[in-house]
Amino acid sequence: MKAVVLLSGGLDSSTTAYLARSEGYEICAVSFDYGQRHWRELKSATRIAQMVGAIEHRIVRFDLRQWGGGSALTSSLELPLDRSTDEMGEGIPVTYVPARNTIFLAFGLSYAEAVGAELVYIGANAIDYSGYPDCRPDYLTAMQTVFTLGTKAGREGRPIRLEFPLVEMTKPEIVLLGDRLGVPWEKTYSCYTGAELSCGHCDSCLLRIAAFEAAGRADPLTYAG
Amino acid sequence: MKAVVLLSGGLDSSTTAYLARSEGYEICAVSFDYGQRHWRELKSATRIAQMVGAIEHRIVRFDLRQWGGGSALTSSLELPLDRSTDEMGEGIPVTYVPARNTIFLAFGLSYAEAVGAELVYIGANAIDYSGYPDCRPDYLTAMQTVFTLGTKAGREGRPIRLEFPLVEMTKPEIVLLGDRLGVPWEKTYSCYTGAELSCGHCDSCLLRIAAFEAAGRADPLTYAG
Repeated sequence: MKAVVLLSGGLDSSTTAYLARSEGYEICAVSFDYGQRHWRELKSATRIAQMVGAIEHRIVRFDLRQWGGGSALTSSLELPLDRSTDEMGEGIPVTYVPARNTIFLAFGLSYAEAVGAELVYIGANAIDYSGYPDCRPDYLTAMQTVFTLGTKAGREGRPIRLEFPLVEMTKPEIVLLGDRLGVPWEKTYSCYTGAELSCGHCDSCLLRIAAFEAAGRADPLTYAG
Repeated sequence: MKAVVLLSGGLDSSTTAYLARSEGYEICAVSFDYGQRHWRELKSATRIAQMVGAIEHRIVRFDLRQWGGGSALTSSLELPLDRSTDEMGEGIPVTYVPARNTIFLAFGLSYAEAVGAELVYIGANAIDYSGYPDCRPDYLTAMQTVFTLGTKAGREGRPIRLEFPLVEMTKPEIVLLGDRLGVPWEKTYSCYTGAELSCGHCDSCLLRIAAFEAAGRADPLTYAG
């Protein structure tokens, strides 16, 4: 049985890929080259796809910079650095990209139906200062309805299931789960800057560092300082 | 006020664009170069966008051929020709592309949020032998929920509305509506083959010809025979 896994090469999606494998699925990984600031994460995604034994890894290319949307991830807008978790917890972050997960999930659904996969896994996480609207359970549940009604598979009684196993987990819990599943953390990449050495100051690095600390695990990445 | 219109250059989406204009919106048109059999429809979409006075026309490029999905629109699979409407009415057509409208609508949503548009219009039509699951009202209603829950705009109380005004209309009714709105039919293109001269034999041509006949209007297109 096949499962499509949305894979960015970060902590959450890598853990999700290993979880899907532990549940016995053949993994069809899909990553997106969408005009983000950098392609460093795609290198990690490719490496993780190999290590988890994905039977396919597709990279879908399109360009969200064409309408900007004011996101710090698809423009030269400055990334916030060294924010406290209180600051991160306020509202929707500037790294929000309009409807990004809806686009990713739509491609994941298309891929799943085309290859006959039964599920689509996404590592969305609603806890720990994630203000992203398209990471919340109510949104993901609405996408499940779209998966069921919007496909031939669904209309014929074989709906493709959307799995979001990390959505209610804290980051330290995700680290512990990934550790147990053998995620090769040294191959993952979380930094928003795209530098070869992770910056250690963007929201994503700070949350990662804090998560490993709280979980009592060592993060094998070297940070720029 | 702005509205995003999904525009393929065919009968339904062109009528939808003219309808959006008649309702007073500034039109941001978006078309998709997704690896379909031909690009002829994009030429029509571009011309219609100009004629309807769209303030922007974006073409989003990506490649659905990479996972095929067995659709006659994204592969060399033969198009069915000269089918009766009874045959067309049976099941989901081979021209179904997995999750295509979900992908299109996800991009439309992203575009709308990025430019501050209030609505996204789609010319989906569930009547007259369209077996496409992603053209039906229940599916489109589920997408509205995704629009509301999956965006910053929606979470902040300014949900982007999804409009599908043609969904319950027959093709002859659409011809009459388009006629009243002044759609330049000679610039539209419906044929699945992509030939400069429409074939007159694919499902799409046959439904168009029948619609103009039933509406008592002349279709200005010349057909190959």
